[in-house]
Amino acid sequence: MKIGILGYGNLGKGVEFAVEQNKDVELSVIFTRRNPKDLQVKSKTAQVASVSEIEKWTDKIDVLILCGGSATDLPEQTPKYAKLFNVVDSFDTHAKIPEHFENVDKSAIETNHTAIISVGWDPGLFSLNRMYANAILPNGNDYTFWGKGISQGHSDAIRRIEGVKNAKQYTIPVEKALQAVKNCQNPTLTTREKHTRECFVVAYDWADKEKIENEIKNMPNYFADYDTTVHFISEEELEKNHSGIPHGGFVIRTGKTSEKNQHVIEYSLKLDSNPEFTASVLVAYARAAYKLSLEKNYGCKTVFDIAPAYLSAKSGEELRKELL
Amino acid sequence: MKIGILGYGNLGKGVEFAVEQNKDVELSVIFTRRNPKDLQVKSKTAQVASVSEIEKWTDKIDVLILCGGSATDLPEQTPKYAKLFNVVDSFDTHAKIPEHFENVDKSAIETNHTAIISVGWDPGLFSLNRMYANAILPNGNDYTFWGKGISQGHSDAIRRIEGVKNAKQYTIPVEKALQAVKNCQNPTLTTREKHTRECFVVAYDWADKEKIENEIKNMPNYFADYDTTVHFISEEELEKNHSGIPHGGFVIRTGKTSEKNQHVIEYSLKLDSNPEFTASVLVAYARAAYKLSLEKNYGCKTVFDIAPAYLSAKSGEELRKELL
Repeated sequence: MKIGILGYGNLGKGVEFAVEQNKDVELSVIFTRRNPKDLQVKSKTAQVASVSEIEKWTDKIDVLILCGGSATDLPEQTPKYAKLFNVVDSFDTHAKIPEHFENVDKSAIETNHTAIISVGWDPGLFSLNRMYANAILPNGNDYTFWGKGISQGHSDAIRRIEGVKNAKQYTIPVEKALQAVKNCQNPTLTTREKHTRECFVVAYDWADKEKIENEIKNMPNYFADYDTTVHFISEEELEKNHSGIPHGGFVIRTGKTSEKNQHVIEYSLKLDSNPEFTASVLVAYARAAYKLSLEKNYGCKTVFDIAPAYLSAKSGEELRKELL
Repeated sequence: MKIGILGYGNLGKGVEFAVEQNKDVELSVIFTRRNPKDLQVKSKTAQVASVSEIEKWTDKIDVLILCGGSATDLPEQTPKYAKLFNVVDSFDTHAKIPEHFENVDKSAIETNHTAIISVGWDPGLFSLNRMYANAILPNGNDYTFWGKGISQGHSDAIRRIEGVKNAKQYTIPVEKALQAVKNCQNPTLTTREKHTRECFVVAYDWADKEKIENEIKNMPNYFADYDTTVHFISEEELEKNHSGIPHGGFVIRTGKTSEKNQHVIEYSLKLDSNPEFTASVLVAYARAAYKLSLEKNYGCKTVFDIAPAYLSAKSGEELRKELL
């Protein structure tokens, strides 16, 4: 399977790594909006091409993995490129998924392509686990906890504050809440009771640290509803201890099958690198998109619509023998 | 969806409970090898019929859930009844799954039925999680731990020892091994290092307890390769503290996406009642079998072949909006 990627940020670089782990996948081309000559890529085999030349590649790759952001890139790119390629994206604005699905479905159906949207771990693997658990235990409660991990959006929000040179923000599940859920206590949890936020901030020498801390803690939506801790540290310390992009979390469903019997289904991820892991999920679903397109199963899909075997390089016989 | 069940042991009774949790499912008939008049069932709506009359029901139910055992019942029943009905079974003899698959596939294909085999939690949900995790992290290690829970087979093995009146055996994961796996230490674990076995035994007054304990601890395959603890207790204590059928376990895959970044994918179940939970999985997959048969997607399937959305009573739109 030959794949191309559009966008060479953390996620695109993650796809490069993921391809190395999958013998049946070849990275043929990296499309960029920059001047291709200015892009230093890790891959020794992939070509680097300007996105303006993308139409020349329609017969040369099997799947295009869109590695842009959900805010502005993907709502435009996925419907557009689903007209030219089988595509996979990681669109993660939960509230706008139905609209995005419709737009991509229209493009893909009209042009006989297979598109899989909202692939990654949330939405993605977490969604799958919510869905399986709901189907199996219809009478129960869902809980999703995120972290411990870096929230890019919250880190960016801190960086926009006057006097802040750099910042990283960790989202952390509250251990007490997590335990109450695992113990089938079915707690009703407020936002504050579920997660705390820990911020590591590098301030300019001239900055008013007290003012920065207040501004963070009272920022609506991002921090005001949480117990937030702010640490001021040096640029060196941030680089040394907080330069990774770890993440993870828990999806838990508890439910009853009869008056006296209850059950806990738990799925959790502990990730050293959020983009590298997300990219690995994208590559597995790119394989699925390619297989579905060969079966002429066109249109837009989500993880809910894809039989698990399509993700694997192994045959049905091998899977039944080795993993069932 | 109208379902029938064949076999009214713990699993069949679990299906009765599961049906109550699913508004779109109706239990129409319970087939038994006993005299139907002798069977007291919980369901107020289901008919009880002799399995000898099963052919009269081919147009009256949508899916038959086979609730027999894997040793002798299912190898015969599933291929046989896949000629008459869409069927779901919980065949769990891992080594014989490929053969069972072929037999069931032949019957189902010839007669335009949909069959789903080896449904439950292992094989079943644990298999799914092994498969997803392998597709996403091809470079890694798999670990499955079972328990803490009652092993029916091991409890039965103890009961066959002379002087034993009753017994329950718990399989217990070794906490140290579990932690080493979760910490990405990629340990190579022997059978003894992964699980311990704890036995609660009611002996007859005349029995030689020391002999029983020795016989248990040295029983090949079942106990000899494990650290086994034996407790002799009274019949009353067994009834009071060990009459449940709890189980559960962990599926963990750890893997690398690049030299420096590793990840942990963990799935775990904590079940008050093994048969009630297994039955809930069977009912969800019965829904899938029915939907697939309506699409004329016939033949034998496993959990690997079923897109998750087929398990749910919700529409694709609802799933995307609520659970993605």
